[in-house]
Amino acid sequence: MYPPLVSARQNDAVGKGVHVQELPGIGKRYDIDLDSPDQRISVVVRSGGIRDLYVFASSSADPTAVIELTEEQARKVGAVLAQTFFES
Amino acid sequence: MYPPLVSARQNDAVGKGVHVQELPGIGKRYDIDLDSPDQRISVVVRSGGIRDLYVFASSSADPTAVIELTEEQARKVGAVLAQTFFES
Repeated sequence: MYPPLVSARQNDAVGKGVHVQELPGIGKRYDIDLDSPDQRISVVVRSGGIRDLYVFASSSADPTAVIELTEEQARKVGAVLAQTFFES
Repeated sequence: MYPPLVSARQNDAVGKGVHVQELPGIGKRYDIDLDSPDQRISVVVRSGGIRDLYVFASSSADPTAVIELTEEQARKVGAVLAQTFFES
């Protein structure tokens, strides 16, 4: 379910604390560092636009929750998290 | 853990599919509709900037995963989800 690491390239455009991996044939995977080693958020942006949101909220290697979002849904969630809905 | 509904006011600025509730003394809660009734994402934006991300990935009334994000972390996750990191 969770795509394997294929390569590890840092994309400076995304900023510190965000690690990007190319997933050939799938899209890109973004890992966002959180303060706790037991907490992590990964997002796989598929070539077609679908985003898979993986939330790791425990020390388990398996995600605590996985949600598939359309591009539009992901934009809404993103706008709420960043509190930027007046700019979009 | 999951703040109760206090009032239900629709904020049209956020757009369709996003429901906003004021949580007096806490902040605002945003519920983002997803396609499946069993899947939902809620974000509580606290007055101090902290965001609580609640992911509901099953039919349970309890969240599948809860992650507390700083404002900066939430912006990063939001930028990745919306794919807007070149604009920030």
